Amino acid sequence: MSIVVVGSVAFDTIETPAGRVDRVLGGSANYFSLASSFFTSVKMVGVVGSDFPQEHFDFLKSRNICTEGLQRVLDGSTFHWVGRYDATFADAETLSTQLNVFEHFSPNLPQTYRQSPYVFLGNIDPTLQAHVLERVKKPKIVACDTMNFWIYGKKEELLKTLKMVDILIINETEAKELAEERNLVLAARKIRHLGPNILIVKRGEYGAMMFTGESVFSSPGYPLGRVVDPTGAGDTFAGGFMGYLAQSGYSFEEEHLRRAVVYGNTLASFVVEDFSFNRLREISLDHINARFKEFTAIASF
Amino acid sequence: MSIVVVGSVAFDTIETPAGRVDRVLGGSANYFSLASSFFTSVKMVGVVGSDFPQEHFDFLKSRNICTEGLQRVLDGSTFHWVGRYDATFADAETLSTQLNVFEHFSPNLPQTYRQSPYVFLGNIDPTLQAHVLERVKKPKIVACDTMNFWIYGKKEELLKTLKMVDILIINETEAKELAEERNLVLAARKIRHLGPNILIVKRGEYGAMMFTGESVFSSPGYPLGRVVDPTGAGDTFAGGFMGYLAQSGYSFEEEHLRRAVVYGNTLASFVVEDFSFNRLREISLDHINARFKEFTAIASF
Repeated sequence: MSIVVVGSVAFDTIETPAGRVDRVLGGSANYFSLASSFFTSVKMVGVVGSDFPQEHFDFLKSRNICTEGLQRVLDGSTFHWVGRYDATFADAETLSTQLNVFEHFSPNLPQTYRQSPYVFLGNIDPTLQAHVLERVKKPKIVACDTMNFWIYGKKEELLKTLKMVDILIINETEAKELAEERNLVLAARKIRHLGPNILIVKRGEYGAMMFTGESVFSSPGYPLGRVVDPTGAGDTFAGGFMGYLAQSGYSFEEEHLRRAVVYGNTLASFVVEDFSFNRLREISLDHINARFKEFTAIASF
Repeated sequence: MSIVVVGSVAFDTIETPAGRVDRVLGGSANYFSLASSFFTSVKMVGVVGSDFPQEHFDFLKSRNICTEGLQRVLDGSTFHWVGRYDATFADAETLSTQLNVFEHFSPNLPQTYRQSPYVFLGNIDPTLQAHVLERVKKPKIVACDTMNFWIYGKKEELLKTLKMVDILIINETEAKELAEERNLVLAARKIRHLGPNILIVKRGEYGAMMFTGESVFSSPGYPLGRVVDPTGAGDTFAGGFMGYLAQSGYSFEEEHLRRAVVYGNTLASFVVEDFSFNRLREISLDHINARFKEFTAIASF
């Protein structure tokens, strides 16, 4: 079954201890879509400028990613982010954010998108997230990401959006900030009262945790001997997670949700092995399933 | 089968966001021994002053912990550590360290200790660790802890001790410092060339990882809604780990090592729920086994 995703489509200029790349393709919608596309068809909502290369449109189409909802603003430039990671590969330092056409982005949802049973609201203005969501007819699963910028800048709007969301997928710091609570277990409890029945906390190299009504699930991170670029790992995680669920039309069964989390970690563990989508372009579902099995071996006792 | 442990026996004065305690019992040998004692008999090597209460000697004996190797220096005071944790419960800030009788500690190994098949070298001067180890006859498993103080201050002596050790149990920062390598997977590879065939990395609330020749194992942390005092968690982990192995006379089989890691995490998750040994005094092996089962539920997919 198909997934609708709304998010950013960007050029990234990135420096990490492993190297530097200029104006490579990035953005939450891109990372999410590529990760999901290993499992199912994806319908992308976003905006680009006239500088966005036709070859990337072609690439997305070749991956069964629909770009009908990807607006092209002819007199504008694509969102451009410049960032740097230090030797710990922890949070990126933003050196420059040129929003360009993304600044006045108003998402359009093509008619063909409105029956999609799976929706992922990438990290954009919560008002726009709500706008997209309200145009999808009775989705089966709605998942959502956000960040400190919206938690502090548009809390009220964010809380409104969260009421309509089934699964919130955010990182550990964001979870604590959103809940205003330093203990993650208590933070999860608070957040699950805000709307999302399921909270997934991304913990970088430590893997991910999922809090549901029934239980807590902890998935390890993959032990990587070499990280090149952590950019997009979170959206790639979400893409692997939702892609796995959508492929078989899964709903909220604990067993499937858990496997989906591990698929999310699996996809994320690949994407950080190179810049941009380079690694995702190289791998197949066979590679993904093989690494999923490694996760089983890593976690079992 | 019995375990010999050498380490510190201390009074701790501790402040955490959950409260404050004065001169409560602590020290690596104490925490290790109590955790191990749920599984097997323990023989403690250490030193205390005349201020060390008889009631604690009695308590240790009641737990099948032998104190024949616990020297009592009548004209001295017991090691006293004063520390504070901030709201994140991350690394403790040391406010004062009064080594007292611990400063000139020279471990004595009673004859009855020398046949013990399991040895744990708690975090003390690596020269003293070697001194103890050389006096045990052909131990089956030797595990060891250390810290940045020895990594930077007595590197050569530490490397000599590590050559005689099977399992090194240290925290993540220490592993990276010891290996002079920021990537944990590469650090583990380096450390396993220094002597210990098995490296266990303690990661606080993120659980623990074990690197062996065959594989990597990752155990989650236990999702605690309330932490009171992290002091002693690492030594309690080591005690649970070694205790489980020693109970059944296990050696280096991957399956048993993995379960031992989870028992280590289980014991550590209890000890942080209260100050000093308060929580370990309350629980039984039934509580421990019940939480071990919870770990299984948390990690399975």
